[in-house]
Amino acid sequence: MHITALAGGVGGARFLRGLLAHLRRTPQLAGTRLTVVGNTGDDITLFGLRVCPDIDTLLYTLGGGIDEAQGWGRADDTHHVAGELARLGATPQWFTLGDRDFGTHVFRSQLLGQGMPLSEVVSRLAARWGLDEQGVTLLPMTDTPVETHVVVAADGEGRRAIHFQEWWVRHQARVPAERFVVAGLDGAAPAPGVLDALRSADVVLLPPSNPVVSIGIILGVPGVRDALRGTRAPVVGVSPLVAGRPVRGHADACLRAIGLESTSAAVAGLYADFLDGWLVDEADPMSSAASPRVLHRPLLMSSPEASADLAGAALELAMSLQQAGGRA
Amino acid sequence: MHITALAGGVGGARFLRGLLAHLRRTPQLAGTRLTVVGNTGDDITLFGLRVCPDIDTLLYTLGGGIDEAQGWGRADDTHHVAGELARLGATPQWFTLGDRDFGTHVFRSQLLGQGMPLSEVVSRLAARWGLDEQGVTLLPMTDTPVETHVVVAADGEGRRAIHFQEWWVRHQARVPAERFVVAGLDGAAPAPGVLDALRSADVVLLPPSNPVVSIGIILGVPGVRDALRGTRAPVVGVSPLVAGRPVRGHADACLRAIGLESTSAAVAGLYADFLDGWLVDEADPMSSAASPRVLHRPLLMSSPEASADLAGAALELAMSLQQAGGRA
Repeated sequence: MHITALAGGVGGARFLRGLLAHLRRTPQLAGTRLTVVGNTGDDITLFGLRVCPDIDTLLYTLGGGIDEAQGWGRADDTHHVAGELARLGATPQWFTLGDRDFGTHVFRSQLLGQGMPLSEVVSRLAARWGLDEQGVTLLPMTDTPVETHVVVAADGEGRRAIHFQEWWVRHQARVPAERFVVAGLDGAAPAPGVLDALRSADVVLLPPSNPVVSIGIILGVPGVRDALRGTRAPVVGVSPLVAGRPVRGHADACLRAIGLESTSAAVAGLYADFLDGWLVDEADPMSSAASPRVLHRPLLMSSPEASADLAGAALELAMSLQQAGGRA
Repeated sequence: MHITALAGGVGGARFLRGLLAHLRRTPQLAGTRLTVVGNTGDDITLFGLRVCPDIDTLLYTLGGGIDEAQGWGRADDTHHVAGELARLGATPQWFTLGDRDFGTHVFRSQLLGQGMPLSEVVSRLAARWGLDEQGVTLLPMTDTPVETHVVVAADGEGRRAIHFQEWWVRHQARVPAERFVVAGLDGAAPAPGVLDALRSADVVLLPPSNPVVSIGIILGVPGVRDALRGTRAPVVGVSPLVAGRPVRGHADACLRAIGLESTSAAVAGLYADFLDGWLVDEADPMSSAASPRVLHRPLLMSSPEASADLAGAALELAMSLQQAGGRA
């Protein structure tokens, strides 16, 4: 079987780690291949180095090198490079980069600077993290540099646009966002393999990633949404909201910015043209309509087992939709 | 008083630290300013980052951050970035860069990438290391990127050129060098302030730096040699050789490559057109001719006091030459 998933950072990575655990514990799923299409819309150039936060969180989480407590960055990392940069007055200082993490960014920046496409750089990083051995192919959504900017109201100065990471990390999404603008997205081509992975998949999964600034950005890469509408595979998603609040991150602030309520139904509405199955929390009031087919399950990924169970439930729903005659 | 010195890496930096110590302990020299013109001929781009080994050794040594045992790099540094780069298969792996050191290189590379001249970057780094407070101005010899390459015989393949650092660090200068070629040197302009510092100095000092690949490269920057010939200041140098061998580094191999013997007399010959005074080791057979005036002193900088004494002797010789009617 071939599963393709779209993914943002921490929530997506933990769900997919759960999926891999579920595949390992389920003999009849042996040999399943997983292709992950990662969001690069929150990439940022810091200190002259190209940083891909979501891709790196996927690499480190699936490769066993993640800082579990933070959810991002390398386990047991030190911060001597960042300390020296701060001592030199380099900015920004609101984005934390550890020393081992800097190794990734220096490596990537050197290869990008030599003209290597990001997808090939990611493939090299994936090899270092043993993703191939786990049957996982990680693809960036595009090789074109794109950057999500957030239009915020500035006191007395009208609007201004700041980088998504400044809004997310520095301001913790507390400054009301008026709009997200993804520079470069219109002209971005899907990275090699992305559309094929969606078209040829047996199952497409949407982990509980941010529907606006993670999944939503990937869907904005020309061709991706069409591929999801056209794929024969059932598309099953997991709501990122429990009781109207994101389990992690700031999906509520993002939904508010695009004029939507923080409900699983509103998120499903963003995927209405291709979503076949939808996992929501046990206590979620959303019920099944003709499509998507709604399944209630505990959404909190409070342990590796809980993550594996959630991924297993999503996969089971997809397979039942498949057996029931494919897509709605 | 204004002293200007040309300097390479470890030997030059230790001598100049001794000079600063001598100035501090000598009340009548209070207020003396020191301008250091640093060699950038051994600069190298590693992992996409611009590394200036001699400039950094000067910064770290004069700023109190040097790894004393090594003579280069930061004290108590860790190596997590380099470890990750090695894990990723990045090359080369023969050049050691610590994490705090990486902070310097990332900072410099970012600013250079934004179009800032190297001299301005060095000025910012010098501020971080408190050089201004010590009355020291550090200038790179040029803002133009130059790189020293070494022509070596390759078995059965004729000649090939390798980067100076590969010859120096990786091969420890054991591969016989046929020639040094400094890419970019002919078209390099002296950095702002370099020629003025030589012309307006009261004393010019040549620390015991490598006469071929450190001092020799600085002398090759168009205009520098002429400024030394024309300056009213006495020019006093310190031989880098004790008993025909370099105290540190591979000056003997460098002299051999340009067809010279490893003697203080041969080194003085390289500076014949501008050298007024020359410190050689106590046991050195070289004697005074009309010029330069030769002074025998212990050259080993075995302690901070020994370095200060050596620098003091060089300065005293310069001042005596000055009082005796200026240049020979």
